[in-house]
Amino acid sequence: MLKIGLIGTNWLTKQFVAAIRTIDYYQLTALYSRKLTRAQEFGVEIEQELAYFDDLTAFLASDLDVIYIATPNSLHFQQVKSALEAGKHVIVEKPAFDNPQQMQTIQEVLQAHPGQYLFEAARHIHEPNFQAVTQAIAEFDHQDGAVLTYMKYSSKFDAFLKGDTPNIFTKEFAGGALQDLGVYLVYDAVSWFGVPEKVQYTPTLLRTGIDGRGTAVLTYPDFQVTLNTGKNVQSHLVSEIYSGKQTLTIDNAGEFNQVTLTKAPGVQPIVLSQQPDTNPMIHEAQAFGDIINNHDQARFERLNSLSINVNHVLYNLRRSAGIVFPADEDGRK
Amino acid sequence: MLKIGLIGTNWLTKQFVAAIRTIDYYQLTALYSRKLTRAQEFGVEIEQELAYFDDLTAFLASDLDVIYIATPNSLHFQQVKSALEAGKHVIVEKPAFDNPQQMQTIQEVLQAHPGQYLFEAARHIHEPNFQAVTQAIAEFDHQDGAVLTYMKYSSKFDAFLKGDTPNIFTKEFAGGALQDLGVYLVYDAVSWFGVPEKVQYTPTLLRTGIDGRGTAVLTYPDFQVTLNTGKNVQSHLVSEIYSGKQTLTIDNAGEFNQVTLTKAPGVQPIVLSQQPDTNPMIHEAQAFGDIINNHDQARFERLNSLSINVNHVLYNLRRSAGIVFPADEDGRK
Repeated sequence: MLKIGLIGTNWLTKQFVAAIRTIDYYQLTALYSRKLTRAQEFGVEIEQELAYFDDLTAFLASDLDVIYIATPNSLHFQQVKSALEAGKHVIVEKPAFDNPQQMQTIQEVLQAHPGQYLFEAARHIHEPNFQAVTQAIAEFDHQDGAVLTYMKYSSKFDAFLKGDTPNIFTKEFAGGALQDLGVYLVYDAVSWFGVPEKVQYTPTLLRTGIDGRGTAVLTYPDFQVTLNTGKNVQSHLVSEIYSGKQTLTIDNAGEFNQVTLTKAPGVQPIVLSQQPDTNPMIHEAQAFGDIINNHDQARFERLNSLSINVNHVLYNLRRSAGIVFPADEDGRK
Repeated sequence: MLKIGLIGTNWLTKQFVAAIRTIDYYQLTALYSRKLTRAQEFGVEIEQELAYFDDLTAFLASDLDVIYIATPNSLHFQQVKSALEAGKHVIVEKPAFDNPQQMQTIQEVLQAHPGQYLFEAARHIHEPNFQAVTQAIAEFDHQDGAVLTYMKYSSKFDAFLKGDTPNIFTKEFAGGALQDLGVYLVYDAVSWFGVPEKVQYTPTLLRTGIDGRGTAVLTYPDFQVTLNTGKNVQSHLVSEIYSGKQTLTIDNAGEFNQVTLTKAPGVQPIVLSQQPDTNPMIHEAQAFGDIINNHDQARFERLNSLSINVNHVLYNLRRSAGIVFPADEDGRK
């Protein structure tokens, strides 16, 4: 059993806890929060006996195999680094890091700790319906790109409009639509089509200087991929992947509930998807557990390489729009 | 009755003929084609007694009030100019002209012929369902822009793939996705949101150097509008216009069959549209006839001003993608 400790106490952590409970690999052991009471309250919410820590060093020194991190983006780098250096495997929420400098540093730490794994929790790429899309794309005789959309009005945007500044809408916490929902779309594009030749992101900026919404265009040698992401508007658009007259449709490019293929205009679509699990994090938790238990270095390296590429594309998109995070400035020192 | 003559013999002309037959204003009188037999065959197809011309000067000198032009885009400028100089009102298919230089020249011709009208046949903006969208947008307390899509696999694209070069896929005839279907979307955006501050078009270019597909981003002070257009892929995406949690949905941003408003996520959409006419050109034919018969200079000027703005935006989009038409080069001499 892998003893797992959690950093971050939010709805995502709860979903992750529910996911690992369905898998034999994991034993939920400890919880860290800067405020001990918060950690304890969270423990009560998930109704489990846990060791509670408000001291990160003590938490990382405890008897844990894996650390799951679901904190604001700008905190990931230091927390992942500390956890790896403490000899733990790490699962970190997407986007793992703010920029390629951070990613490079972490890669060096990984190299210094052979046999330890770091996973970016891009849950959707591990789901069967994502794999169905991947398979269908591979069967096209040529690619004509895609229009992928993930734009949902944030539950925190009303507060933002009233003058509050939730973390997700700040540069300080490396927020914005691209980082929060766009990362799903970038994972899609890089998984299916590889690293683009050129990228351009055009955002609508909010008063905090981050992107409330934006359109990214990824240019490949023979086609383009358009990404629509946003947290200040509500979109019901499906996503589409093209090959001439053939159109592959995903109900949502971050959630993958239904995938259909329309072979020609006017022809009845074929359903390629299966009923998704209620908890979309089960498949990633299973995949990470498999890799750790089987020491599957090759599978780890494929995921790690994808994570590095996504990090580069996300960064280049963000910088093409002139959005600079504090961590970028630090990196230049 | 307005005696009307036709230049151009294609499916659009047939649809236009069917439209004007439903309106009392017009009397279809003559038909011009470079090949007389083609004109006569077309006359037979529309089952009407017409005067046939293969000499443009004689056609324009004949007893006509209005000329309708539906030829390849690159021919519009010279044909419109000749028709206006011959003292006729003109209805020309969209896009009217290849660039702002041509538009400027035509505006000078119009000024020299007071009382004569030129209409760009942007049929959709005259339809009741377009007006329903316009009205709903005006009722939003603020605008968050839109994602508008019109991408249909062209009936001529198979031939293009086999090595043929239909006019619509050439620079010589001022073709490409933006000019052919994108013009509907640009009309939408400029009608609803005005002239953008900045525009950027990223296309997938075909072997002839024109755009098979592309994404345009129009930047306004407080929001952005994204346009997806293409003739080499088949999209089933609806179009959306945003205001916070409210989403206005159009089944197709060039065809306007159904318009709905969703006031908040999860709420039942309200239908704002009516059943469209079978022939979508009836409303424009009616509008142009109204203006001519009533000498409605103010209404003409509003449409003319919109046409000038659309011409500028289309040109700036095309040039932002580095697509140069022969007429642009001529204009620099």
